[in-house]
Amino acid sequence: MSNFWNPLIKQLEPYIPGEQLDDPAIIKLNTNENPFPPSPKVLTAIEEEAKTKLQLYPSPTVDELREEIGNYYGLKKEQVFIGNGSDEVLALGFMTFFEPGKAIKYPDITYSFYPVYAKLYQLDVDEIALEEDFTISPESFFHSEGGVIFPNPNAPTSLYLELEAIEAILKNNSDQVVIIDEAYVDFAEKSAVSLIDSYPNLLVVQTLSKSRSLAGLRVGMAMGHPDLIEGLNRVKDSFNSYTIDRLAIAGAIEAFRDTAYFEKTRKEIIATREYFRRELEKRRFHVPPSQANFVLASPADIEAEKLFTELKQAGFLIRYFNKPKLENYLRISIGTKEQMTKLLHAIDSITEK
Amino acid sequence: MSNFWNPLIKQLEPYIPGEQLDDPAIIKLNTNENPFPPSPKVLTAIEEEAKTKLQLYPSPTVDELREEIGNYYGLKKEQVFIGNGSDEVLALGFMTFFEPGKAIKYPDITYSFYPVYAKLYQLDVDEIALEEDFTISPESFFHSEGGVIFPNPNAPTSLYLELEAIEAILKNNSDQVVIIDEAYVDFAEKSAVSLIDSYPNLLVVQTLSKSRSLAGLRVGMAMGHPDLIEGLNRVKDSFNSYTIDRLAIAGAIEAFRDTAYFEKTRKEIIATREYFRRELEKRRFHVPPSQANFVLASPADIEAEKLFTELKQAGFLIRYFNKPKLENYLRISIGTKEQMTKLLHAIDSITEK
Repeated sequence: MSNFWNPLIKQLEPYIPGEQLDDPAIIKLNTNENPFPPSPKVLTAIEEEAKTKLQLYPSPTVDELREEIGNYYGLKKEQVFIGNGSDEVLALGFMTFFEPGKAIKYPDITYSFYPVYAKLYQLDVDEIALEEDFTISPESFFHSEGGVIFPNPNAPTSLYLELEAIEAILKNNSDQVVIIDEAYVDFAEKSAVSLIDSYPNLLVVQTLSKSRSLAGLRVGMAMGHPDLIEGLNRVKDSFNSYTIDRLAIAGAIEAFRDTAYFEKTRKEIIATREYFRRELEKRRFHVPPSQANFVLASPADIEAEKLFTELKQAGFLIRYFNKPKLENYLRISIGTKEQMTKLLHAIDSITEK
Repeated sequence: MSNFWNPLIKQLEPYIPGEQLDDPAIIKLNTNENPFPPSPKVLTAIEEEAKTKLQLYPSPTVDELREEIGNYYGLKKEQVFIGNGSDEVLALGFMTFFEPGKAIKYPDITYSFYPVYAKLYQLDVDEIALEEDFTISPESFFHSEGGVIFPNPNAPTSLYLELEAIEAILKNNSDQVVIIDEAYVDFAEKSAVSLIDSYPNLLVVQTLSKSRSLAGLRVGMAMGHPDLIEGLNRVKDSFNSYTIDRLAIAGAIEAFRDTAYFEKTRKEIIATREYFRRELEKRRFHVPPSQANFVLASPADIEAEKLFTELKQAGFLIRYFNKPKLENYLRISIGTKEQMTKLLHAIDSITEK
């Protein structure tokens, strides 16, 4: 604590991301990364861009990438905002649409960066308890004072909320912005992007870090009514004109163009998730029906924390939260089928001891 | 203006960066970019990194790059903070060290992003008038209520303030943070980094966008006492865990390792600046003694705005600000000697008409 920090900064409780280890001997299933590399076309685009003009600033408006994403989703570029990873997009969203004194609603079990943003921007919060089975009750998000945010699928529960329920939440918050954080939506049923033209209060946030294998490149986006996008751009342009570098722009464009690679890897991860879930259930784990690239799993024959610790010793990194309601759960990212089979063998060795 | 924006956002006046045109026919001397590409070793490092693991998150603590910069300047990594371009570093600095109700001091002619940050963070400001010759009077920055920030060399004046004067400002603001924004310092006499161990209230901000030819990669840094760096990291980790992508980290490390390339290109730009300045003076321009990779220049035989417009028509993009005290000045980035010679010919054609 330093006297040079202002009073707000002294109170912050920063977000702590999952461990990032570079040890190739470890099977890393703790931060929901994609086990597959990005499309080879993405790498070619990055190499080409690097050769040409890294000494020049990138486009501050990122129009080309916004148009590409617009084409993919049937939106205009004025409906697309780009940020330095979806965490930056979310932070700017909190800053633009929420305000001190008007409580925002988010689930009590959710992405743990939301309370951190709320502190940073001095927002009041109304944490809504999930149901016993970890599902979201739409009615409990109606009539917020200051806005709503939740991930769909939710993290770390992995559960998906149907678009009908999201529509009900939008209708019952018509004067407030509702942010749907779709970091994992490509592993789920359907994006809420289809609702954008009907609900001017809907902001959909996505990332290229999960389904598009580009966690290392830092690109996220928000989609919504042009007024919401303009608000985000005003804040971004008051903070940092050039948030996305040339290589990230070039790579991200190609990631949206190569739909064949995207569909292939996405479907393979979904198939592996279903295989892994069945195998865990055979081993008496409770596993809510995941629509993400991870599962939340509760073992019956061993304490979750003990299993987490023993798996770490055996070279498998997964995530244990040690939070109310999640004490006996583990979050496990979906890797390749080979990685998940190895993990199942390791679980068997530990539980059979 | 949308009702979904909060009251603060409605009041913002975002920064407007210089035009970024991709037209290769234009000689672009308007945003102080480096005319030379980055070191070939930087490009190799980027290509190698792209091949390995873009699907994995980068290091959230960026330790390897912090150590490399620390080695370069004789600092520990705990004295180095990394951000997504120096604009992000500055924004986070404003947020961490300055606070509403305590006016900060900066020059009346300076980097035009400072008033934008001040609005974003609702800070009171005390704009200090430069002397007639655009120099900074150190005494006028003594005893600030809330902190001090200015670029050295200042932009767009191009003038450098000696370290003795900076020490006097530091001594007379011992309870406040003094941010020296050294975006252009590699084209000047000496960095204030040498003062860091003596002044715990000094934060030095630099960028890889100018002297290291990496405007397209978005990397900036702050250096100072470990307490100041820890404060910046607290805010960063409450905003966005992973601000620097893997390719930017790999490229930036190599940019600091290849000192030979850096020295060669840096010296060439300084030599071209001196040549260009002499040539402008021969043509009766008033040109303050620049220590940056640009000059501020006032023509005697034509209005600055007219020259700006005619040069644009002739295919040369420079910067005209249309602000008090700068009405008859132009800011011209230093390109290659060939580019500057072409520009001089174009100026001759216009003024001899």
